[in-house]
Amino acid sequence: MAQKVKLSTIADALGLSTATVSLALRDSPLVADVTRERIKDAARELGYIYNRRAASLRTSRSGIVGVCVHDVMNPFYGEILKSIETELDRQRQTFILCNHHDDLSKQRSFVDTLLQLGADGLIMSPALGTPAADIRLAEDNDLPVILIARTIDGAGVHGFRGDDAYGMGLAVDHLVSLGHRSIAMIGGTHATSTGREREAGYLAGLERGGIAFQPRWRIEGPRDRHSGFDSAATFLAMPDRPTAIVCFSDLVALGLMYGLARGGVRPGIDVAVVGYDDIDEAEIATPPLTTVSNGQSEVGECSARALIDRLQGTTASEQTTLIQPELKVRRSCGAGA
Amino acid sequence: MAQKVKLSTIADALGLSTATVSLALRDSPLVADVTRERIKDAARELGYIYNRRAASLRTSRSGIVGVCVHDVMNPFYGEILKSIETELDRQRQTFILCNHHDDLSKQRSFVDTLLQLGADGLIMSPALGTPAADIRLAEDNDLPVILIARTIDGAGVHGFRGDDAYGMGLAVDHLVSLGHRSIAMIGGTHATSTGREREAGYLAGLERGGIAFQPRWRIEGPRDRHSGFDSAATFLAMPDRPTAIVCFSDLVALGLMYGLARGGVRPGIDVAVVGYDDIDEAEIATPPLTTVSNGQSEVGECSARALIDRLQGTTASEQTTLIQPELKVRRSCGAGA
Repeated sequence: MAQKVKLSTIADALGLSTATVSLALRDSPLVADVTRERIKDAARELGYIYNRRAASLRTSRSGIVGVCVHDVMNPFYGEILKSIETELDRQRQTFILCNHHDDLSKQRSFVDTLLQLGADGLIMSPALGTPAADIRLAEDNDLPVILIARTIDGAGVHGFRGDDAYGMGLAVDHLVSLGHRSIAMIGGTHATSTGREREAGYLAGLERGGIAFQPRWRIEGPRDRHSGFDSAATFLAMPDRPTAIVCFSDLVALGLMYGLARGGVRPGIDVAVVGYDDIDEAEIATPPLTTVSNGQSEVGECSARALIDRLQGTTASEQTTLIQPELKVRRSCGAGA
Repeated sequence: MAQKVKLSTIADALGLSTATVSLALRDSPLVADVTRERIKDAARELGYIYNRRAASLRTSRSGIVGVCVHDVMNPFYGEILKSIETELDRQRQTFILCNHHDDLSKQRSFVDTLLQLGADGLIMSPALGTPAADIRLAEDNDLPVILIARTIDGAGVHGFRGDDAYGMGLAVDHLVSLGHRSIAMIGGTHATSTGREREAGYLAGLERGGIAFQPRWRIEGPRDRHSGFDSAATFLAMPDRPTAIVCFSDLVALGLMYGLARGGVRPGIDVAVVGYDDIDEAEIATPPLTTVSNGQSEVGECSARALIDRLQGTTASEQTTLIQPELKVRRSCGAGA
């Protein structure tokens, strides 16, 4: 259906010649940037596939699966990607990666590439603000989509992620059981489902422990090692410093621990620190990092299998599968061995 | 020329039917694995491009550049990839990534994908043991190749890497100037040009310092954080332990420092540690890591520009451009601020 959109449909909709539309879709420098973007937007809305010869290739399987995440270098994705790769290898699928850096236009250009190339499917952790319509565009053009780590309301495709609210609750419950009554949370934003869920788990954990949340305990923002390091200064400057900290991710926690050490405060001795994700580095860190294993490899494996099922003709599930997280107690919270 | 190879050429060469060859090249399960691999090998040797319809797309630019490295999650590649991405973004090229994990067949399948898709070019850090012929196959089929970080003798294409021998020499010279007379080197292998060059720089540095190399000072192998951590036990068990260590990479050094701390030995106080690469984490580590900045972002930028020049019609250079490294003195060697 969407495939019947022609160059002339787009040209008519915008009052331009088909030649201009054709040049713009091929990124010709003869078309002004503003016009090109307008044409591409219209093409996207209308569900046009740029290259019809490439589209015709799609009658047979290409053996290519695209994977798009915020940043492949983040070890959180790393463990997911590794298990996706293992599953796809088994199916002789070539696996191509793309970073979107939360830039919708980068993500769209990768999806367009996959459509042009007749890729078999797409596994993605969608960029912030991805509309459900972007997922529908891919699906309507025979590119099955599976979501990982982040989900999108109304996308109507299968998603896999850790049960972040539950997992962060485990971390807070553990700190409360060790006697902590003032617990900060560092990192994450409301812009991602992961950020919202982990914060919700933190607040629920405080409530279960009968602890009144203090807004100054919440340092929002940090999502990588370097910003975790920088947040140590903010934490150390707090009046009535909390005795424990839960972090949005292990990277934030590992950076924070470097920062605390630099400030002369010993993690695991002077302050309890808990991470989230259980990346490979957590258990070798100084001190070994207490964290929540959120089943990244399970997310990767399940998402790749779900995609393979789709390729074999199974109908799309619309559910989000939550993977159950698990607390890993180590020395950074002052309790581990 | 290579484009004139037909299915029948391959079939004749192997004494098989063209139908079998065609099925095998499309990865049909009807063809036995062994046969499929034999057919694919022959097709590769003969320079056949699998999909002729896809090949026909290649008369115009696709706007796609492939980048293939050992592992995109290694922060060493991360900084190179970031600057490649920035350059290619500017040229509106879509950038797709693939890990080869030093597996030649994975690398070949990515190159095949790029050929089938009519990609504009390939920037790669070749898998161990990549024959020059693999690079020629891509070049002969209009896929320009630029090499990064590792080079291949006789490949006849432009390569960019840091001057690793010189850089490791800077690290050793500095340790000698601090009075060290026994210096270990941990990590890296002879299988990569990087490993060979960095070791050569270490040996040359010892010689310049008038220090006789002791084979027990050389712990080969570690190339990531976890194996760096594990090597601490080996180092700590050495009789007449060296007073200083140069590491193959920052990841090895950062893992080693975790391991030394775990063993009760303080890096920067009880033993001098120097890394290599100057990844983002080096300056925030505990203690901050003395290291050699090998100009990864320059490698990335130059390689992307060289590829863009090729796309604009410049002939391939056959040289390897060496980027000059720089020593960054921090606290882990006992000398920094």
